[in-house]
Amino acid sequence: MATRIHIFDTTLRDGEQSPGASLNVEEKLEIARQLERLGVDVIEAGFPVSSPGDFQAVQAISRLIKNCTVCGLTRAVPKDIDVAAEALKPAVRPRIHTGLGVSDSHLQHKLKMSREQAMERGVAAVKHARKYVEDVEYFLEDSGRADRDYLCRVMEAVIKAGATVINIPDTTGYTTPEEYGALIRYVREHVPNADKATISVHCHDDLGMAVANSLAGVLNGARQVECTMNGIGERAGNTSLEEVVMAMRTRRDVYDCETGIVTQELYKTSRMVSASTGILVQPNKAIVGANAFAHSSGIHQDGVLKERTTYEIIDPRDVGILESKIILTARSGRAALKHRLGELGYEYNEAMIDKIYVRFLEVADLKKEVYDEDLEILAADETSAVHQTYELLQVQVSCGERVIPTATVRVRDAQGRELIDSCHGTGPVDAVYRAINRIVNVENSLIEFNIQAVTQGIDALADVTIRIQRGNDIYTGRGANTDIVVASARAYMHALNKLIDRVTPSAADRETAGAV
Amino acid sequence: MATRIHIFDTTLRDGEQSPGASLNVEEKLEIARQLERLGVDVIEAGFPVSSPGDFQAVQAISRLIKNCTVCGLTRAVPKDIDVAAEALKPAVRPRIHTGLGVSDSHLQHKLKMSREQAMERGVAAVKHARKYVEDVEYFLEDSGRADRDYLCRVMEAVIKAGATVINIPDTTGYTTPEEYGALIRYVREHVPNADKATISVHCHDDLGMAVANSLAGVLNGARQVECTMNGIGERAGNTSLEEVVMAMRTRRDVYDCETGIVTQELYKTSRMVSASTGILVQPNKAIVGANAFAHSSGIHQDGVLKERTTYEIIDPRDVGILESKIILTARSGRAALKHRLGELGYEYNEAMIDKIYVRFLEVADLKKEVYDEDLEILAADETSAVHQTYELLQVQVSCGERVIPTATVRVRDAQGRELIDSCHGTGPVDAVYRAINRIVNVENSLIEFNIQAVTQGIDALADVTIRIQRGNDIYTGRGANTDIVVASARAYMHALNKLIDRVTPSAADRETAGAV
Repeated sequence: MATRIHIFDTTLRDGEQSPGASLNVEEKLEIARQLERLGVDVIEAGFPVSSPGDFQAVQAISRLIKNCTVCGLTRAVPKDIDVAAEALKPAVRPRIHTGLGVSDSHLQHKLKMSREQAMERGVAAVKHARKYVEDVEYFLEDSGRADRDYLCRVMEAVIKAGATVINIPDTTGYTTPEEYGALIRYVREHVPNADKATISVHCHDDLGMAVANSLAGVLNGARQVECTMNGIGERAGNTSLEEVVMAMRTRRDVYDCETGIVTQELYKTSRMVSASTGILVQPNKAIVGANAFAHSSGIHQDGVLKERTTYEIIDPRDVGILESKIILTARSGRAALKHRLGELGYEYNEAMIDKIYVRFLEVADLKKEVYDEDLEILAADETSAVHQTYELLQVQVSCGERVIPTATVRVRDAQGRELIDSCHGTGPVDAVYRAINRIVNVENSLIEFNIQAVTQGIDALADVTIRIQRGNDIYTGRGANTDIVVASARAYMHALNKLIDRVTPSAADRETAGAV
Repeated sequence: MATRIHIFDTTLRDGEQSPGASLNVEEKLEIARQLERLGVDVIEAGFPVSSPGDFQAVQAISRLIKNCTVCGLTRAVPKDIDVAAEALKPAVRPRIHTGLGVSDSHLQHKLKMSREQAMERGVAAVKHARKYVEDVEYFLEDSGRADRDYLCRVMEAVIKAGATVINIPDTTGYTTPEEYGALIRYVREHVPNADKATISVHCHDDLGMAVANSLAGVLNGARQVECTMNGIGERAGNTSLEEVVMAMRTRRDVYDCETGIVTQELYKTSRMVSASTGILVQPNKAIVGANAFAHSSGIHQDGVLKERTTYEIIDPRDVGILESKIILTARSGRAALKHRLGELGYEYNEAMIDKIYVRFLEVADLKKEVYDEDLEILAADETSAVHQTYELLQVQVSCGERVIPTATVRVRDAQGRELIDSCHGTGPVDAVYRAINRIVNVENSLIEFNIQAVTQGIDALADVTIRIQRGNDIYTGRGANTDIVVASARAYMHALNKLIDRVTPSAADRETAGAV
């Protein structure tokens, strides 16, 4: 019988640590709901002590999710664990994830502790966490570069103290599959009580080997894989959930294991995470990239027509990429919209459906045919809404080659006053941004600007993602409209409102914790 | 002493097979020049028999490149080999790359030959190629699924016939590192004359393991790695050059090998390939992604400040990511522009420099400060220029929220007539495209639309990439301007001119060959 591997998704924690990817509570709830539908075993929902927003998100996800373990990250200190336990209280299956560095590099440079001190701290943290929950995971940060005997001693001690899962991360993405597999085998063979806990792999992709390293861990006895959708995360990101899951499924003959993942939900989840975080998936990304199942060269097309398996090892339908699409029109009612959004993974209350329906009708009026991708963007756009200190009422632009781009904007401020101003710029978006700046007047710099057409056709809905920076903080704004200039204006207003609200505390204000 | 591994770059052949990535001869020459600077050992320049464009590109690259082997792909048929030999004639070190499927799936479904017939065909092809060149590489397509004894017999026979390099591709990206390593070891141990040829690995990333598979091959005796910049290529793409090279370098203690790659050129090469092909690199891409060296979480920033190696295993400077940037202004002369373009890898004749200088001044006038990224985009934009059946003279747009987006365009046709038309649309780009369509009137559908701001700041130069489709053919257009509407108009005109010119013959017209 195939071994059951647990999938521990950390999109909402490690993935959200990607620069500028910060999500609000609504967006996190939506992704958590989709992860439950996808069938992950554990959702790491956040790092509760790090900010009020993270606390609220972990708490809200704990209330919402019934079929997955909900996990919160902590440092190995009592305060973190108390706060995490509080956030996780409503969860059906709560898990506290705590831990500490084990490599000498981490102990000396970061923690400034002796090996013994660090071990005592870890044991105390596990015991403290076990007062609140049955399920405690312990991370041995930077295991890849740690002294093996010390690693084994810490592991034995924290399992004895009550840890149920041991996470052996390759924090810097430095190891090779042979090394990482050998490390997992080593701890299994040298820690006397290793069989009392589940061993978990957590790999980073700095050398492009996160998937292979994770699978090497599985081949050597790991039973939990930590990963993120689209492989997002710090630096080059984490192990990609869709890749590691599909590799185990496609090569079940080699790995002889199975997961609880409903693979048909993979594509939808990938799109939702990309839309919410604003982190694009490159076309040549395995499993979920736009080209992953595209065959361009004559020979491959020919081969595929003759026999699918000649070049295709995965059926696109198995990951939820469907040929046939349901198209809504201006004649579609609210019920039809709600139903289709539900099928796409977006479940909303009536008030939210009302809001989206208004936007839907605007788009349907212009575009005639509204595709799933359009709906996804409208939904993501509404979910990402923040408290609007300034509301954009009107935008008017003239531009072109041999025209001085000029914009006029009308904005309503918190006091209900309508303010109008205009400005010229190097292009229509620059002109709009300058006109908004004349009204809002908050210093910031634009560090990224992306527009994607979400559907085919020149009348497509444009999805604009921008990132602005002020000091050390980065704010992401998104806007969708059939007019790219209006979409850009909305995205900028969205990011500015986030900045004004300081929805995310600055990186400097955040508590720092063991980043696995 | 560390073993020397040869890097075989197939960005211009397998990479260019990515949907819509097709490059013109000028763009290929520019990339080839940069690959030579990067220090690759072999440049696979194209598939000469497949189209006149491919033939010209291979021939031009053969003339240009002095320090790398230049390679052309062929099927195992005399005509292909004759044509490739002709294209490669000017090369200092020419190589012909020929071969045939070896798996029963390929033999039965695609080739419809017996094993013996296929082997005879392969031997004859190698002998024929050796009449023209000393260096012949033979690919054993779909080796991963082939019968091992047959695989070895073919390999022995083609080495005996004169093959100098044996390419053992994992065509479908199906194998695991253990399997692929074992396959390489198996052929080395079971083919009596294996030591007479270099064994080459060629992996695809469908399960996210191309890098790990390639390295498993190296550990088991392969001495050439086939790869592409940014890992582009058919479906999920090929082994990423930058990842496999940096893994070998960073883990030299494990792999004990070295390459001739000048790693400081990696970032520049990645940007050039992305700009030319229009294939974006995702932020969480290892080595060359925008976030590859970014640390967002408080903990990581803290750790990195305390000791760089805590979280960073590669120094960004080693891959050519520099902090300091040289900024040109409207006061910079032609010489300064030429010099800086040269440092960025773009070497142009005076006529081209003149053209770029005109565009540079326009941008410098608007933006004040012109960054390296702006120059790269202007350069790529000019290099990608095609024969202009229609020339865009003027664009004028008004748009906004509660405005009906309306565009007027003025275009010059091949007869020198100036044509003006206007149209409204769902947004400014839609309006421009509809206005152009009223003049040009060529049926097509837009299948992708991307805008990126190339530099920081709201006055940034926008880089628009679009793909349009007509029948089975896809045409990519690019346009750069500080005005995104003008950039979009240029991109559309560019793609339309390509379509009208039929620069790329349709996939159906192309010869089909062994796609490795």
